[in-house]
Amino acid sequence: MSKKQPQGAPDQTDQPAAPHLEVIPLGGMGEIGKNITAYRYGDEIMVVDGGLAFPDSHQMGIDLIIPRIDYLQQHAGLIKGWILTHGHEDHIGGLPYILPRLPRVPVYGAPLTLGLVREKLAEFGLREGEIDLRDVDIDTNEKVRIGTHFHVEFIRMTHSIPDNAGYILSTPAGKIVHTGDFKLDEEPSDGKLSDLHRIEAAGKEGVLLLISDSTNAERPGRTVSEAEVARNLEEVIRNCRGRVFMTTFASNVHRVQNVINIAHRLSRRVVMEGRSMIKYAQVAQSLGYMELPEPFLANDEVGSLQDQQVLYVCTGSQGQPMSVLSRLAFGNHAKIALRRGDTVILSSNPIPGNEEAVNLVINRLYEIGVDVVYPPAYRVHASGHGSQEELATVLNLARPKYFLPWHGEPRHQINHARLAQTLPRPPKRTLIAKNGDIVRVSEDDFKVTGTVPAGAVYVDGLGVGDVGDDVLLDRVNMSQEGVMIMTAILHPTPHVEIVSRGFVRSNRELDAQIRKVALEAVEQGMREKKRLEDVRDDMYGSVRRFVRKVTGRNPVLIPMIVD
Amino acid sequence: MSKKQPQGAPDQTDQPAAPHLEVIPLGGMGEIGKNITAYRYGDEIMVVDGGLAFPDSHQMGIDLIIPRIDYLQQHAGLIKGWILTHGHEDHIGGLPYILPRLPRVPVYGAPLTLGLVREKLAEFGLREGEIDLRDVDIDTNEKVRIGTHFHVEFIRMTHSIPDNAGYILSTPAGKIVHTGDFKLDEEPSDGKLSDLHRIEAAGKEGVLLLISDSTNAERPGRTVSEAEVARNLEEVIRNCRGRVFMTTFASNVHRVQNVINIAHRLSRRVVMEGRSMIKYAQVAQSLGYMELPEPFLANDEVGSLQDQQVLYVCTGSQGQPMSVLSRLAFGNHAKIALRRGDTVILSSNPIPGNEEAVNLVINRLYEIGVDVVYPPAYRVHASGHGSQEELATVLNLARPKYFLPWHGEPRHQINHARLAQTLPRPPKRTLIAKNGDIVRVSEDDFKVTGTVPAGAVYVDGLGVGDVGDDVLLDRVNMSQEGVMIMTAILHPTPHVEIVSRGFVRSNRELDAQIRKVALEAVEQGMREKKRLEDVRDDMYGSVRRFVRKVTGRNPVLIPMIVD
Repeated sequence: MSKKQPQGAPDQTDQPAAPHLEVIPLGGMGEIGKNITAYRYGDEIMVVDGGLAFPDSHQMGIDLIIPRIDYLQQHAGLIKGWILTHGHEDHIGGLPYILPRLPRVPVYGAPLTLGLVREKLAEFGLREGEIDLRDVDIDTNEKVRIGTHFHVEFIRMTHSIPDNAGYILSTPAGKIVHTGDFKLDEEPSDGKLSDLHRIEAAGKEGVLLLISDSTNAERPGRTVSEAEVARNLEEVIRNCRGRVFMTTFASNVHRVQNVINIAHRLSRRVVMEGRSMIKYAQVAQSLGYMELPEPFLANDEVGSLQDQQVLYVCTGSQGQPMSVLSRLAFGNHAKIALRRGDTVILSSNPIPGNEEAVNLVINRLYEIGVDVVYPPAYRVHASGHGSQEELATVLNLARPKYFLPWHGEPRHQINHARLAQTLPRPPKRTLIAKNGDIVRVSEDDFKVTGTVPAGAVYVDGLGVGDVGDDVLLDRVNMSQEGVMIMTAILHPTPHVEIVSRGFVRSNRELDAQIRKVALEAVEQGMREKKRLEDVRDDMYGSVRRFVRKVTGRNPVLIPMIVD
Repeated sequence: MSKKQPQGAPDQTDQPAAPHLEVIPLGGMGEIGKNITAYRYGDEIMVVDGGLAFPDSHQMGIDLIIPRIDYLQQHAGLIKGWILTHGHEDHIGGLPYILPRLPRVPVYGAPLTLGLVREKLAEFGLREGEIDLRDVDIDTNEKVRIGTHFHVEFIRMTHSIPDNAGYILSTPAGKIVHTGDFKLDEEPSDGKLSDLHRIEAAGKEGVLLLISDSTNAERPGRTVSEAEVARNLEEVIRNCRGRVFMTTFASNVHRVQNVINIAHRLSRRVVMEGRSMIKYAQVAQSLGYMELPEPFLANDEVGSLQDQQVLYVCTGSQGQPMSVLSRLAFGNHAKIALRRGDTVILSSNPIPGNEEAVNLVINRLYEIGVDVVYPPAYRVHASGHGSQEELATVLNLARPKYFLPWHGEPRHQINHARLAQTLPRPPKRTLIAKNGDIVRVSEDDFKVTGTVPAGAVYVDGLGVGDVGDDVLLDRVNMSQEGVMIMTAILHPTPHVEIVSRGFVRSNRELDAQIRKVALEAVEQGMREKKRLEDVRDDMYGSVRRFVRKVTGRNPVLIPMIVD
C-alpha cells in the first residue's frame, strides 16, 4: 500500500487521480490564535506559519496551546516548504514544537521574522542547522518556488510588527491572495506602505481565492495609524513632569522605536525593563530594525538624572503577574518604586481574557497616586488589524472569485463575509471554514470536501499533550468545589481518614460526621463481604450524598481503601 | 465598662464625648458591588442598602459575595433604621443574609424595591413579619425619620430599574446628598425625571457632603437615554422577518416594558422565558410597574403563529451557562431550537468578567446562522449610570463642601474627583475612601479617623463564610497544577499508592517512578527510625523535587502515612 500511496484509493486526505488545490487550515480559522495553514496540490504540501494560542479561562493551568499537526505528520513526506508571514507568537510561537517533529524543509521568511524564530529555537536548544531558515526580501517582492506547484510572491502589508508579509500564491489551479495579518496604515513608521499595487495587479490577472484577516471585521471605518499613536504619545509625554513608565507589546518594534525617538527629542534617556522587551529590542537592533540615538541606560545608571530625564519602557501591558508593570503596581519590584508625580502609559488594550488583570493593575496604579494614561481616554494605542474600510479596499482590489474570511472567530468571519457581499463586485462564493476543513478550490468549485484532525495540544510545564480535556475537567471541578480524599483503612480495626483541599475551612464536626458516614458504609460492606471495589464505591456514594445534603456542594471525591 | 459605653474612652468605633457624624462604607466604596453604607451620629446608626457582589476569576467556585457586617453586629443596638435605594442585586441581594443577623428595625424603600426584597426573603424562607418593611413614596419626596438624628428625604433618580432613589440626609452635623445609582435620563420610559430640583434646592441651602455614583466617571458626554434604546430596538425588530429572541437584564423593567409595547405595535406576541425574567415581570406587574397590552403567551401556545408574530424575551444577557439564551445557542433547550431566519438581540453589554462567556454565546449564534444584534454596532443598550456631563450637573447643582466619589473602583473614584476639580465651584475637599473607613464629617472637618472591619464573606453552596482565602488559594493551586495524593502504607511491607486528579493523563511509567522515589524516602526514614511526621515530610519533599524536575509542575501534594 505504502508504495502505491500517490495512486492509492482516494479518501479524505489521500490524493485522488486528478490533482486539485486544497486549502487546509489547521489553526486560526474560526479563532484568533495558533495560525497554521496547509496547501496541498497533488502530492505536494506547502505550510504557512506555525503559531500558538493562549488558554481561555477554562483551560486552567495550561501554559500555551499549539495546533494539532496530525495531518502534517501523516503526510510528512509531501511537505515541500514552509513560509512565515511575520514574527508574532500566534504565527511563529508553535514552531519550536512543530518543526522538530517534521522533515527538514526550507522555511522562508523576512529577516526580522527569522531573527525571532532563531531566538526562539535557541531558547529551546535547537541547533540552527536542524531547521533550514531562508531569508526573503519583501521589498523586492521576492518569489520562491516550493515544490513544483507552488510559486509564492511575498508582498509587504503593514501590521504591528516590522517585516510583515502577505503573499500571492500561484498554483496550477489558480492564484490565491493571502493578506496575512494586516492594516492599511497610510503613515507607517518605517515609511513602507502595504503593497496594494501587487494585489491590484493580481486582481486584474484574476484571483481565484482571497484569504483575508477578519479580526476587526466588526469595526467600522479605518484603524488608527501608528503615526497618529506616536503623535499622541509625544503629546502625553511632553506634558509629563516626572518619570514616565510606558508599556506596550514588546513585539511592536515600531511603537518602541517611536517612543525611543520621542524620548530623545524630549531629552529623556530610555531604560528597558523586562525580559521580553529587552529580547525584542536586541533582535531588532541586531538586524537593523531599531536605531538608538543614545544607548539605553540601565536602571542603576539613572541615579544622577532628574525625574523628567527618564523614560522606562517596560513589560506588562496585559497585566501579566510577573511583568515589570505588575511588580511596580503591586509594590514588589526589587529596584524601582512608583511614586506620586510618575506617569504610567499603557500603550495597549487588554487582549480578550486579560481585562480583569489589566484592570487590577490600573486600579493599583491609581491607588499609588501616579497618573495613568490609557485608551480610550487617550488614543495611545492602535490595533494592528484593519477595520471595515481597509478590508473593503483589499476585497475591491483583489476582486476574488472565492473568499475565505480567515483570522477570526465566527462573528468576525461572518461579518467579513457580509461586508464582501455589500461591495460592487462581491465574491461569487464565500465559505466560513473551520480548522481541519479541506477546502477544495478550482475555477469551477469551492467547497469543503472533508476534514482532517485539527484542534488544540496543551503545553503545560514540560509536558506537551499530556494534559487533555479530561484532566482539565478535573481541574475545573476542583477549582469550583475542592477535593476530598477518604481513606478507609480496614486493619486492624476499620477506620476512615478524611483530608480535603479547597473544600471548606477545617471543620472538626463536619469531618467527624463524614468519617462516620464513610465508616458505616465500609462496615456494612464488610459485613456483607462485598468486594473491595464495591465497598469503595459504597463509601463514595454515601459520602457524596451526605456532603451534598449538608453543604450543598460536590467536591471531587477520591475514595481509597487500604486492606 | 458596658454601662459607660456612650461616655467611654474614645476608640476607633466607640463614641467619644462630642457627637459627630461618621460615614462608614462597608461595601461599594473602591469597588462596584455589594453596596452598604452606615451613618453614625452619637449613639445612632442608620444603614443604606445591603447588596451582594459576584466573584472574580480568582474567587473560584464562590456563588456570591456579601459584605462583612462585624461593625453592625458589634453595634447592633445602635441601629435605628435602614433605607434601600433600589432593587438591584448589588443593593438588596445581601439582605437575606444580613437582616436576620441584626435586630428588627424599620426598612424603608419604594414599592418595587420592597416587592423585590419580599420575593427574595420568601425564597430564603424568611417570614414577612421578621423584617419590618415600610413603603415610601418617592414621587412625593416622602421623608422618614430614623432615630432622632437622621432625617431622610427620598428623591427620584433615573436608573435602569424603576423606583430608583437617592436621598437627602439631614443630620445635626449638616446635610448630605447621596445620589444613589443614577443617570440623568431626559426621556425616561415612565416619564419621571430625576429630581434635580431638590438637589438644587439642597445646594442652595448648603450641602455638607455629596456622595455620588462614579461608575461611568471615565466616560465623556452623556449616557444614552432609555427612549433612544427603545427607538433603536423598534427599528431592529421592525426589520426582522422571522422570530425575535431578545435578552436583557431581567431587572430592567422599563426596557422589558418597552419591548412588550414594541411587540404589540408590530403585532408580535411576547413569550417570557427564564426564571428571573418571569419573576421580575410578575413582581413588576403585581405592583403596577408593568402593563401588558396582551397577556404573555406560553411557548406551547406559539404553534399557530407565524414566525414574524412572535417575540421571546429571555434570560442570558451575561452568557450564564444555564440561561435560556445559552441553552438556545448551544442547542440544548428542551423545547425551542434556533434556526436561520431568527434574530437574537442582546440588549445588554457584558459586565466585566463575563466577556468570554458572552463572546462564546455570540459565536455559537453566528454558527447557527441566526442574525445577531448587539452593541456597539447596534445601539440597543444603554448603561444605567451617568457619564461625565451628568456627574458634573449633579456636582454643579449640589455644590457640596465635601465630596465622596462612591460606587466605583479607584480608577472611577479618582476620575470623578478630578472631574469635580474642573468645575466652577469645586468641592473644598474630596476623599477617596475605602470600605471600612470611618469618614468623619463636620463643617470644619472631613477626614478618615479610623477603620472598622470590612471585606468579603463568601457564599458557597449552603455555606456562608466557611470558605476563606486559604481555601480559595488551594482551589487556585489545584486548578493550575492538579492534586496528587501519596499514601504510604507501612505494614506488612511498606509500599506507596499514588492517585492524582488534574495533573496529567494517567501515565504508568511516571506513576511507577514517583512511587519508587516516595518509597525510597519512606524506607530510609524507617531505617533511621524517624517519627512518622518526619517520614511523611521526607516523602513529600522527595516527590515534590522529583515531580518538578521531570514534569516542570507543582501539583498540590497530599502525603499520607498509614501505620
